[in-house]
Amino acid sequence: MTVVDWNKRFSARTNHKKDDSIKEILALTQKPEMISFAGGIPAAEFFPIERIREATNRVLANGRSAEALQYGLTEGYVPLRQFIVERMQAMGVPCGIQNILITSGSQQSLDLIGKVLIDPGDHIVVEEPTYMGMLDAWRLYGADYCGVESDQFGTDPFSLEDALVSGPAKLIYTVPNFHNPTGVTTTPARRNEIVRMGRQYGATIIEDDPYGLLRYDGDHLTSLIALDAQGIEATPDDPLAGGNVLYLGTFSKSLCPGFRLAWIVGPVEAITKLTEIKLNADLHTSTFAQVVAYEVAKDGFLEEHLERLRVGYKERRDLMLALIEELFPPNVHWNRPEGGLFLWVQLPDHVNATDLLKHAVAEHQVAYVPGTPFYPHGGGHNTFRLNFSHASPDRIEEGIKRLSVVVRHSCEPL
Amino acid sequence: MTVVDWNKRFSARTNHKKDDSIKEILALTQKPEMISFAGGIPAAEFFPIERIREATNRVLANGRSAEALQYGLTEGYVPLRQFIVERMQAMGVPCGIQNILITSGSQQSLDLIGKVLIDPGDHIVVEEPTYMGMLDAWRLYGADYCGVESDQFGTDPFSLEDALVSGPAKLIYTVPNFHNPTGVTTTPARRNEIVRMGRQYGATIIEDDPYGLLRYDGDHLTSLIALDAQGIEATPDDPLAGGNVLYLGTFSKSLCPGFRLAWIVGPVEAITKLTEIKLNADLHTSTFAQVVAYEVAKDGFLEEHLERLRVGYKERRDLMLALIEELFPPNVHWNRPEGGLFLWVQLPDHVNATDLLKHAVAEHQVAYVPGTPFYPHGGGHNTFRLNFSHASPDRIEEGIKRLSVVVRHSCEPL
Repeated sequence: MTVVDWNKRFSARTNHKKDDSIKEILALTQKPEMISFAGGIPAAEFFPIERIREATNRVLANGRSAEALQYGLTEGYVPLRQFIVERMQAMGVPCGIQNILITSGSQQSLDLIGKVLIDPGDHIVVEEPTYMGMLDAWRLYGADYCGVESDQFGTDPFSLEDALVSGPAKLIYTVPNFHNPTGVTTTPARRNEIVRMGRQYGATIIEDDPYGLLRYDGDHLTSLIALDAQGIEATPDDPLAGGNVLYLGTFSKSLCPGFRLAWIVGPVEAITKLTEIKLNADLHTSTFAQVVAYEVAKDGFLEEHLERLRVGYKERRDLMLALIEELFPPNVHWNRPEGGLFLWVQLPDHVNATDLLKHAVAEHQVAYVPGTPFYPHGGGHNTFRLNFSHASPDRIEEGIKRLSVVVRHSCEPL
Repeated sequence: MTVVDWNKRFSARTNHKKDDSIKEILALTQKPEMISFAGGIPAAEFFPIERIREATNRVLANGRSAEALQYGLTEGYVPLRQFIVERMQAMGVPCGIQNILITSGSQQSLDLIGKVLIDPGDHIVVEEPTYMGMLDAWRLYGADYCGVESDQFGTDPFSLEDALVSGPAKLIYTVPNFHNPTGVTTTPARRNEIVRMGRQYGATIIEDDPYGLLRYDGDHLTSLIALDAQGIEATPDDPLAGGNVLYLGTFSKSLCPGFRLAWIVGPVEAITKLTEIKLNADLHTSTFAQVVAYEVAKDGFLEEHLERLRVGYKERRDLMLALIEELFPPNVHWNRPEGGLFLWVQLPDHVNATDLLKHAVAEHQVAYVPGTPFYPHGGGHNTFRLNFSHASPDRIEEGIKRLSVVVRHSCEPL
């Protein structure tokens, strides 16, 4: 019998060794007594279950059942793409259904973009910290990450320009609204600067916007793709012709993650290529999920539902912030995000948030995600991310109390 | 305004130029007057719509609604994996849920396998002709295809051994049951030979089995993964430890394609790596589709439903074969598949099936897929694939009549 050594068979692109220590700690947080602020997950109690049930019944009772169950277009279900077009147009983005590709969640949007745009060794400019799911996905295509600084106003434009001047970059990845992990929103002036620099230095901008519709304070800010489109010369076939931005939206935070439904908006040339590559990746996204989601979202329901989510999540954010204000010691810093799911905590420099997590999980049954894995080249040892959307108000109260004990104890001035 | 040239931005891996001429001809076949035997698609009239409606209502009415709508495990929904384990065990495959990864359709299974196992330039052994969706997916990872001959008994073992002797191969890809595109079933003796050679030459076998459950004549043949497992030494943690085969199954042909649900079976080491890479590709497959599909399939329903499909598809296959027998000229050859969705037609050598398709579509409103795109390096110019599952009996009758006029006319002896 010949011995099979699978490890020797795996491709070189998958060889990157991940530090799984944080994952191992968080694996312990599934127990019911644990209060976890770690996951970036919506509150299940807000899912529009009854609407989804009714929608599925309608879809399967009338002539559309075959289209919900049969193979579909790689580009996605036409009425759903038209629905997205109307929302994007309302946000100031000129587009038609030919500018929209439906994907199986934004993680797939990122994977397809990596496959289509990244050659091994390409410089990819990312904020530090940034979304770790993007870092892992694009590493498989050979991305060479170039981190730029960010602060409470978003990407630092001077740091960004330094990075772009130092060598050609293929992509600039940014989460301008209620950033993951920091919760920060990029200011209008900086959005203009990023858009301008993307064009000037020939780097495609990837605007990842999973949380933009979950704003609890202040006014909607114009998206980068809308700013960029102000300068383009549309053609009859392509309202986004010559655009330099790919925009990523999702239904995971507005309806539910279980549908795995998201979309990419971009110029026809880019969408056509991404569609061709999606065909090879999974033929198309579940038609069942797409047809049901459209039936759920249509006739103004999505907007009504978002309003309910905003009320519910704002309450949780405000509660968490009030408790932190009351219970955390003065040498700890945190921010007040205007929307989204996360806030960001900075401990004194001598405290390691990963070590602290072990203690918090083992001794106090409370969890968060340490900041380090969000940095492409390490850093942020004294930071962590808190999710305020998932736990109920009762559990937020109990969880922040538990966490404050850990934090207070560790943050005593040296 | 800086000009954006997207074509210059696309990665080198996506540069392969496809011949889209057949796609362009088939794009004309959407009209209702057209009778198409081209697509590899199930009959929508057999979809278990009422069962899916009831299943969705049950799932959304009881305590499982959150798990159907929330984020889920990358490996897949546990009860669905357990369901698959029981079916695979009944086919003689020793496995536990740790050997199963749920994917978003077999096309994703192929994509993940390519990403995890293929380095640029790796030799990949494939039957000629073979499934073109695999060829396109793995080309993106740098596959160098080495075609081996196949005949009415499946892969030719002498041709296979020649290919394996000529240089190390990473993968052997095979569709042993009711092959796409040829409809051929690999004989038991040849299955043993393929399994033996995979081990001897250190090449992983990818057993793609989308149609195995749709058998209309004869007895089920033991799968390659079950044959290979007869020689392994299972460990307490892995019933497939040391296995050399990855098996691909799907619900697209047994339930419906719209769920986009399939699975990979393999040793824990391989499944673990594939799961890690699936996390980067789309986090996980739609929990909504998984939980509903499990609720549909359980309690013996899948087996009952398969029995109905077998009756319906057998009727269509027999009808198509009888009409071909009656109407096609004697210098045309075809086979009698024991199951699946396809049969394969060989015209005289002087007839080009792609040219004939143009004529068939334009003048006679009937379509098929020419054989050439199923060959990695060209060939099969005088062959085509007919699907017998999708068109109703009435349309099969009318369509084969139309096609026979085209075929008879073109196949007159020179």
